[in-house]
Amino acid sequence: MTREKAPRAPTIREVAKLANVSTGTVSRVVNDASDVKPAVRKAVEEAIAELGYVPNAAAKSMRMGRTRTVGCILREINIAQLGGFVSTAQNVLNESGYALLISNSEGRREREIKLLRSFSSGQVDGVLMGPYTPIEGEMEEILRDLPVPLVMIDRDQPPWCDAVYVDHEGGTRLATSHLLGLGHRRIALLTGPMGLHPAVSRVRGFEGAHAERGIAPLPDLIVSGSFLRDHAYRATSALLSLSRRPTAIIAGGIDMLSGVLRAIRTHGLAIPGDISVIASGRSDLSDLHQPPIAVVGWEQSEVGATAASLLLDHIIRGRRDEPRRVLIPTTFDPQASCAPPRGPGSAEGP
Amino acid sequence: MTREKAPRAPTIREVAKLANVSTGTVSRVVNDASDVKPAVRKAVEEAIAELGYVPNAAAKSMRMGRTRTVGCILREINIAQLGGFVSTAQNVLNESGYALLISNSEGRREREIKLLRSFSSGQVDGVLMGPYTPIEGEMEEILRDLPVPLVMIDRDQPPWCDAVYVDHEGGTRLATSHLLGLGHRRIALLTGPMGLHPAVSRVRGFEGAHAERGIAPLPDLIVSGSFLRDHAYRATSALLSLSRRPTAIIAGGIDMLSGVLRAIRTHGLAIPGDISVIASGRSDLSDLHQPPIAVVGWEQSEVGATAASLLLDHIIRGRRDEPRRVLIPTTFDPQASCAPPRGPGSAEGP
Repeated sequence: MTREKAPRAPTIREVAKLANVSTGTVSRVVNDASDVKPAVRKAVEEAIAELGYVPNAAAKSMRMGRTRTVGCILREINIAQLGGFVSTAQNVLNESGYALLISNSEGRREREIKLLRSFSSGQVDGVLMGPYTPIEGEMEEILRDLPVPLVMIDRDQPPWCDAVYVDHEGGTRLATSHLLGLGHRRIALLTGPMGLHPAVSRVRGFEGAHAERGIAPLPDLIVSGSFLRDHAYRATSALLSLSRRPTAIIAGGIDMLSGVLRAIRTHGLAIPGDISVIASGRSDLSDLHQPPIAVVGWEQSEVGATAASLLLDHIIRGRRDEPRRVLIPTTFDPQASCAPPRGPGSAEGP
Repeated sequence: MTREKAPRAPTIREVAKLANVSTGTVSRVVNDASDVKPAVRKAVEEAIAELGYVPNAAAKSMRMGRTRTVGCILREINIAQLGGFVSTAQNVLNESGYALLISNSEGRREREIKLLRSFSSGQVDGVLMGPYTPIEGEMEEILRDLPVPLVMIDRDQPPWCDAVYVDHEGGTRLATSHLLGLGHRRIALLTGPMGLHPAVSRVRGFEGAHAERGIAPLPDLIVSGSFLRDHAYRATSALLSLSRRPTAIIAGGIDMLSGVLRAIRTHGLAIPGDISVIASGRSDLSDLHQPPIAVVGWEQSEVGATAASLLLDHIIRGRRDEPRRVLIPTTFDPQASCAPPRGPGSAEGP
């Protein structure tokens, strides 16, 4: 390690002198600007290497008022479907010389608030997030006072903010219609807290599909409150223990399918013989399950690219006009996990 | 948003005066030190809120020489098994007042190097990573010159560095023995680049289990070079197209199972009737697949907790003695995805 350094750190002036360029050019190389000729960049990089010059990010950030970093708060990092979002957002940001730093809130309110406060204190130049905490009270205040631009991910609140959100309503409407068309009349929808767009939107689509056919949805079979996979497991277990259990379940959250499948297995039920299943978002699990699971899908990469572009517009070009709201469309992909329900005589399973 | 601020930003002195404490106490509250009494913390936080004081992280970091942030470079964020690693590491760091920031290298050499350079320039106080680039040449130099402490994750190089790595050799030896005991003689091992510990270690266990029984492994069935799921798909497809295809496959990487399963499905083969399968690391996919997939497993949370503790020792207590190397044990969990191979007459499938 280089704990033992030369007695005095080399300066940017020394680098510039050795490379025979201006200090501004050294700064542009260090900051990865795109307007530096390759030969010049090479000379500066060689001088940096020869002198062992290390630009100090803290000093640089004070000088330039920029961290060249965007913060992203995710509920969990290992949700399979977030990979497409993160890698695309990162690519778009990198093209403009920005890094993406990710933090894990575990969906906990105090952690979300702490991360936002830390971002507020100058750690990043912009924030991408979809808070798990409903946007009211303290959370709303912190977001309003955030000193850097913010783009909301899959949230339609607050209204003054740029947002990229998914048309869960449309996809859930198609999925529910498909099940109703197969003859299901006891369809369960599991989804997250009703203060959040993805839950509200899915319930709207679910109810809309019922209304279109003049069928009343069964309110006891709409279970909202959490997007967590453990909640999906417990909620599914409870539904499957009802004397008249549902004949189909829609997992209304990107990380809920595994909980639903585990509960169905625990109850010894077969898909689709005993129960039909629909997932939100395509994944290895939905694809490789036997039978493959029907999916309400959308392009997570489109969410990532759009959100990163909107944020860069604010950071680099300082856009200040009306907030922009982008709705990402959904599709429904029926698969062998959905079949007509058994007749009433056999509805309780074998 | 607060682009329009008060003409002059409040200072730490004004906060201290209003809260009737010293500036040192304000600083300790801002930096989340644990030795501040709740009542004092509350008074300071109220003064901060009243005045709208925003500590500047960049200025703070220059004053204190600390960012209170640890950087972690992952190959991909959506590898299911990394969730346990990240959340545990984050919890251990948070208890000491440090945040964990994650960056995605996509396993690309130039991105790993760029992220390390950016970390070197004062962005973080320490680094957790397992480079995908073999630790030699430029990568070795950058790691050696890193001005902050480093703990390697699942790498046994470089020798001067603290490292937490997994005993893939032991688990792969158990898995291979299990398959040999069932009568398999054409076992394939897919794994990553031979410059990296997880690949080297798995090959050693694979060859060791063969040697124990006096059986020669078939070198053509050891496919190394990449841990990526797409590589696993292509390598499995190639193996299944051989005139004498393997009767069992070990997916020797935490993100390779989905590629192996896709290729087996494309070839229309049944598990375990036509081919036995073993995964590295338990996941929703290994658990919920029908049949469940046998797994070489270990505690990712133990990797995360150990690595974070070692790093904090360096950052907070400035440890400078011999590097510490921690080996995390593995287990083998046989499942219905492994069965005896069919007789030679039916080895080509139905």
